[in-house]
Amino acid sequence: MTGTLYGLGVGPGDPELITLKAHRLLQQVPVIAYSVSREGQAPARTAVAPHIPVGCVEIPLNPSVDCDSKPDAATAEAALGDVATALDAGQDVAVLCAGDPLFYGSFLPVFGHLAERFPIEVIPGVSSLNACASALVTPLVAQGEQLLVAPASLPARTLTIRLSESDAAAITALPGHFAKVRDCLAATGLLPRSRYIEQATVGQQRILTLDQVDAEQIPDRSMVLMRRDSTDRTF
Amino acid sequence: MTGTLYGLGVGPGDPELITLKAHRLLQQVPVIAYSVSREGQAPARTAVAPHIPVGCVEIPLNPSVDCDSKPDAATAEAALGDVATALDAGQDVAVLCAGDPLFYGSFLPVFGHLAERFPIEVIPGVSSLNACASALVTPLVAQGEQLLVAPASLPARTLTIRLSESDAAAITALPGHFAKVRDCLAATGLLPRSRYIEQATVGQQRILTLDQVDAEQIPDRSMVLMRRDSTDRTF
Repeated sequence: MTGTLYGLGVGPGDPELITLKAHRLLQQVPVIAYSVSREGQAPARTAVAPHIPVGCVEIPLNPSVDCDSKPDAATAEAALGDVATALDAGQDVAVLCAGDPLFYGSFLPVFGHLAERFPIEVIPGVSSLNACASALVTPLVAQGEQLLVAPASLPARTLTIRLSESDAAAITALPGHFAKVRDCLAATGLLPRSRYIEQATVGQQRILTLDQVDAEQIPDRSMVLMRRDSTDRTF
Repeated sequence: MTGTLYGLGVGPGDPELITLKAHRLLQQVPVIAYSVSREGQAPARTAVAPHIPVGCVEIPLNPSVDCDSKPDAATAEAALGDVATALDAGQDVAVLCAGDPLFYGSFLPVFGHLAERFPIEVIPGVSSLNACASALVTPLVAQGEQLLVAPASLPARTLTIRLSESDAAAITALPGHFAKVRDCLAATGLLPRSRYIEQATVGQQRILTLDQVDAEQIPDRSMVLMRRDSTDRTF
């Protein structure tokens, strides 16, 4: 009997935005794992630090599985070896994932590599998308509307067309692409209907108009939200 | 001093998928309100029924504010009169919202009507989008990909074009439009990459291929998810 691999959504950063279910599993599993960035940051662990029980075995995953791209098999095997060993030994392992595990999550490379070998259960979490809209206190998308969720890495022409077709949009993965995103929103006349949100739900949360943003100082997990309809409430 | 109006995301249905923060506020506020459908159902209340404290005052909101369309001012005033009275008397009121309050939520008409008059705080919740992807145990959207979230009420031609442009899609508000959605996915060759999910995270959860679905028997809050990339895992 192998253990079960849990993809555990821990929410957007505020330790109080974890679900009761994720909190319960965190108390039950003997082993947790989480991505660590090249800068040594582990946002998913930070989001639940107050809830991690004493004696829980921790497996930091090296940066090769921090990005959402697919690591090659040998790299993934090396990074996830301790996780696989625990599962093979019959221990349940919870992979902590900031936000929701299946929404641009750091869980995806783990899932891609281990889904065929072990039973998997995913516990959904509050995603950055919902956290950013709550921070703005503005509707994300209303009945009858279309929402586009797109990475800022799209070519400017594609992004401009998609924005022009959408009632609402969330632009993710901004670092290195912010100036282009601002230009696309300006080209479609949607700049006044857009806001930049950084570190939603954690202490350092900031909400800015796009002209206030320093394009060279964009942290990970920041987002731009746009909603075309201005009748409900102006930002 | 008026009370604060909380938009309280209670998650997709499983009472364990409420956040610690929503659970805490539910214990603290003296008054809760929630939408009741024409059939007498109150899914947001059902999702948190085990957590509602004895003595909490409950305000059921009539069906005129159950839909996400904007009720006219007089209708909204009548439906939300008790909420406004409690807030004016200095009591905090939590409006329970299935999923996330700002994502196609039943909170939106309440928000539209009362946001100008009272302080508002929104507590994000696990949305149906994340719950359905977790039920499928398949990535919702991965790095570099675009996700379309669209209502099934879109014209067939528009929906077909949007689907053909998207890496992943969530089609919501299916009742009355299911056959069209199936045709649009067939036209774009994406039928094998799509699944229908009903009642995600609650006891009656069902996952079906689209040809297994009875188009006349689609409950509210069901969803079709599509993901073009088949390399991670086949449904």
